Amino acid sequence: MVIILKPIGRVHSPFKNKQDIDSEKFASSTDFDPIEGELEIDDEFSEGLTDLEDFSHVIVIFGFHKSEGFKLLVTPPYDNTPRGVFATRSPHRPNPIGMTILKIIERKHNILHVSGMDMIEGTPILDIKPYTHRDQKEEIEIGWLKDKKTGVGS
Amino acid sequence: MVIILKPIGRVHSPFKNKQDIDSEKFASSTDFDPIEGELEIDDEFSEGLTDLEDFSHVIVIFGFHKSEGFKLLVTPPYDNTPRGVFATRSPHRPNPIGMTILKIIERKHNILHVSGMDMIEGTPILDIKPYTHRDQKEEIEIGWLKDKKTGVGS
Repeated sequence: MVIILKPIGRVHSPFKNKQDIDSEKFASSTDFDPIEGELEIDDEFSEGLTDLEDFSHVIVIFGFHKSEGFKLLVTPPYDNTPRGVFATRSPHRPNPIGMTILKIIERKHNILHVSGMDMIEGTPILDIKPYTHRDQKEEIEIGWLKDKKTGVGS
Repeated sequence: MVIILKPIGRVHSPFKNKQDIDSEKFASSTDFDPIEGELEIDDEFSEGLTDLEDFSHVIVIFGFHKSEGFKLLVTPPYDNTPRGVFATRSPHRPNPIGMTILKIIERKHNILHVSGMDMIEGTPILDIKPYTHRDQKEEIEIGWLKDKKTGVGS
């Protein structure tokens, strides 16, 4: 069984390639907050964005299109112990899909202007969902990330 | 361009089919919290779960395998106004993929015992990620859901 997905749009970002995202500069959980960008949705799906601008945050499911291959154990930045890939946000995963939560600044037709951008230019967008109270988990434990400078996990 | 994904495992749930999830009974954002289930990851990917049991919550990306077709405007339960599909959590989406956040109870080898289960038996799992501080958004606006009994949005 396979699942075949077709991008519904693409990301516009100040990060033109992977090397532009310096893991030292974007180590803590709020470092991406001021970074702005755009989600450009194909015209054929544009009507599906109706009402989205009334939410403050959006969940974006995207493809790690520059990621090739994966390992089940990865050694993250700021760590020297191999961790299970599903306990990290590494782009090198069995299914190279990512998830991020962005703040909506405004919508103009098929373009969502957002902040919190942590994807690179041209990233294929697979789905967009509203962030709701069910996605807020208040008391959390973050395993191996606990003693790290980063709260990001990639 | 298409993205081809292969499930890494499957869901075991007390909900055997879609009709078992009564939208009246599971309307508010915490109604699924006590529902338990299992994420069974294929043996070939099992090592990738290492360290995950030290996190309290896990993000699951999955396929809406019982969903056929989509509409760009949908009328959600508890609403009588058509909304853009990307402003809902409807399973009938251009790319039929879902995202949910579950609480980890324990891990036994390739099985994650979880609570918060809102998927149906046999749901294909595409990816698992740790829930971290970056995924916690504190002050949020929830658009059309604001005046609804449900905080879920599906």
